Amino acid sequence: MRVLVLGGDGFCGWPTSLYLSDHGHDITIVDNLSRRKIDVELEVDSLTPIRPISQRLAAWQEVSDRTIGFVNLDLATDYDALVALLLELRPDAIVHFAEQRAAPYSMRTQQTKRYTVDNNVRGTHNLLTALVETGLDVSLVHLGTMGVYGYGWSGSAPIPEGYLAVKVPTPDGELEREILHPANPGSVYHLTKTLDQLLFSFYAKNDGLRITDLHQGIVWGTQTDQTARDERLINRFDYDGDYGTVLNRFLMQAAIGHPLTMHGTGGQTRAFIHIRDTVRCIEIAINNPPESGDKVLVRNQVTETHRLLDLAKMIGDMTGSEIAYLPNPRLEADENDLIVRNDQFLALGLQPTTLSEGLLEEITEIAGRYRHRVDPHKIIARSVWRAGMETSADLMAEVPQQ
Amino acid sequence: MRVLVLGGDGFCGWPTSLYLSDHGHDITIVDNLSRRKIDVELEVDSLTPIRPISQRLAAWQEVSDRTIGFVNLDLATDYDALVALLLELRPDAIVHFAEQRAAPYSMRTQQTKRYTVDNNVRGTHNLLTALVETGLDVSLVHLGTMGVYGYGWSGSAPIPEGYLAVKVPTPDGELEREILHPANPGSVYHLTKTLDQLLFSFYAKNDGLRITDLHQGIVWGTQTDQTARDERLINRFDYDGDYGTVLNRFLMQAAIGHPLTMHGTGGQTRAFIHIRDTVRCIEIAINNPPESGDKVLVRNQVTETHRLLDLAKMIGDMTGSEIAYLPNPRLEADENDLIVRNDQFLALGLQPTTLSEGLLEEITEIAGRYRHRVDPHKIIARSVWRAGMETSADLMAEVPQQ
Repeated sequence: MRVLVLGGDGFCGWPTSLYLSDHGHDITIVDNLSRRKIDVELEVDSLTPIRPISQRLAAWQEVSDRTIGFVNLDLATDYDALVALLLELRPDAIVHFAEQRAAPYSMRTQQTKRYTVDNNVRGTHNLLTALVETGLDVSLVHLGTMGVYGYGWSGSAPIPEGYLAVKVPTPDGELEREILHPANPGSVYHLTKTLDQLLFSFYAKNDGLRITDLHQGIVWGTQTDQTARDERLINRFDYDGDYGTVLNRFLMQAAIGHPLTMHGTGGQTRAFIHIRDTVRCIEIAINNPPESGDKVLVRNQVTETHRLLDLAKMIGDMTGSEIAYLPNPRLEADENDLIVRNDQFLALGLQPTTLSEGLLEEITEIAGRYRHRVDPHKIIARSVWRAGMETSADLMAEVPQQ
Repeated sequence: MRVLVLGGDGFCGWPTSLYLSDHGHDITIVDNLSRRKIDVELEVDSLTPIRPISQRLAAWQEVSDRTIGFVNLDLATDYDALVALLLELRPDAIVHFAEQRAAPYSMRTQQTKRYTVDNNVRGTHNLLTALVETGLDVSLVHLGTMGVYGYGWSGSAPIPEGYLAVKVPTPDGELEREILHPANPGSVYHLTKTLDQLLFSFYAKNDGLRITDLHQGIVWGTQTDQTARDERLINRFDYDGDYGTVLNRFLMQAAIGHPLTMHGTGGQTRAFIHIRDTVRCIEIAINNPPESGDKVLVRNQVTETHRLLDLAKMIGDMTGSEIAYLPNPRLEADENDLIVRNDQFLALGLQPTTLSEGLLEEITEIAGRYRHRVDPHKIIARSVWRAGMETSADLMAEVPQQ
């Protein structure tokens, strides 16, 4: 299959590109390197020593004897180039990771809020109109987020796969209707994914575009079978307060002797998935697209749910790390339940990597090995949801020794 | 009250500005004149001879002895200027009309789809972040559309005022939840108003912004008490296939002896409001804003509903005009019921102008008086919802005589 991976240089996009290439697909990465440029802006770097994209691609060719194409293009601003590229490559599937994906970053300043909305909405909408304009029969797979559902909206009821059956009162009784699960985003980043849902819904209906929206949980883990083959292929590992995801941050903190930073009570329950399962899910999604005329196909890309405090305690028990309770910069409930339906992926053959399997490998092989690359002043999360909210001082001042 | 009217040079914005000024409010219009520029692009002009904004404002000062300010600014691109303006003027209320507002225009080409999304979403989001950044205590009144609800979604049940009470099944029984009415937009233009709803909902929740969203029906009529005081104040009247609204188009067609253009069966039912009631509703809205911390206040700004065929027959009976049945360029149901709740505005004192009161005035005083300004080649609607859909040839070739 000819597959375009938009955002293929990022944390999910890079291992997806390698996995699909390794499994015989013909891959072209489209990326404007924005994630690396935001690292420059934030004065932080991946804990793991990621190589420039050209070195990554050369190393992959050396290791696998397979070629991955690369085009540096900004979806939000280079519309004509996007159309030309689609007509030249005529992909069978497009995997769309090319959106600003950190909630804390999206809440840092009015400027980052505006960037997140402008970049994500324009990029995604340009892609949709480009598909209409070119008339290509291509299946689009987009990375959404569990955050579109929010937390606690339906009490203890399981979160369905995208659509919710409800009863609507009428003068004569009630109607049954299937609706898109009500949007309940917790940040500007999550908000953009709820906007995407409406864009997709319209273009599926009006133009018959074939769209799958994957509502992914929090990704943890670093390496896949492919990225582990050569150090030059290593995946990025974000540990900073904006881009680091909670479990990876705990693992890094445990490895360097930093307290595990618990923002709020820890009663928040979240959904997780290992990066190895992310890449498998993407392949399942491109192999099982909807038909033209179908509504948007929504799948929940998660394998486990955990309370954050339970995660911290588990890692504390394994490593002796203490937990530091810090102010919560997010406007969210102290506690929530979370049950998520993921029947579709399980039925299509996904065999999840469970948390208990991968944790130690991460601590020793990734966080432990690259601990000398940590900047301790980047660990505390300082983006706040409203101006003036409380934050914490640094808990560690010295760079850990190798 | 100090009021900023964004889009105050347009069809609704101009009479609103004059009405509010006439009622003692201190008005500043912000407009980038995009509506006039789109006329240039489409090679069409208002049927009524609208004056340049500076002449309009000078005439208003002459007639009323009141001053209206004007700032030429693009919400979507001039963010810093917007922030500076807000800090300088410190308005009590902002009325936001500044979005591309024609469904057919939004569906013309991929370029107009992209413009509509980029302009509307960025402009509205910039406004929201500017309100957060400045910290001003200002109430925002936005013009939405009845089209966010779509047609026929809830069968014959009345369309509520923004929110819908539904029952959600749970493992133990069912929950009652109030949700934003599911979005069901029929064009890219309507789609942008559904995106706006999610933006508003987030910023009301996260930042306590005070927002009213007015879901307006199709506006008809041209003049208000204020715009009628001097011909230099006349409001615009769009008759073309992109910007002309259906009832105004019928009135113009009757006045020039053109068949009444019925796209589809005419079984479509739509909601209407006279421009005189639009301006009253805006004043009611700025006088009755929500509190900080409230959810977005949604009001349905409509006064009557009619089947399009009934409207055409009514005008045909009054004038002898025939009805021409043309292909429908929209992807929509042939027929729909429509009952709309508008209890809030009625309770707050709105006394509607009914269709039967204003029709003849429009035909004689507006369409009849300016009939020589019609370009008959602009009457047929030719924007189609999908490439290749059928359209009609012109039905009239000669410019009508004065």
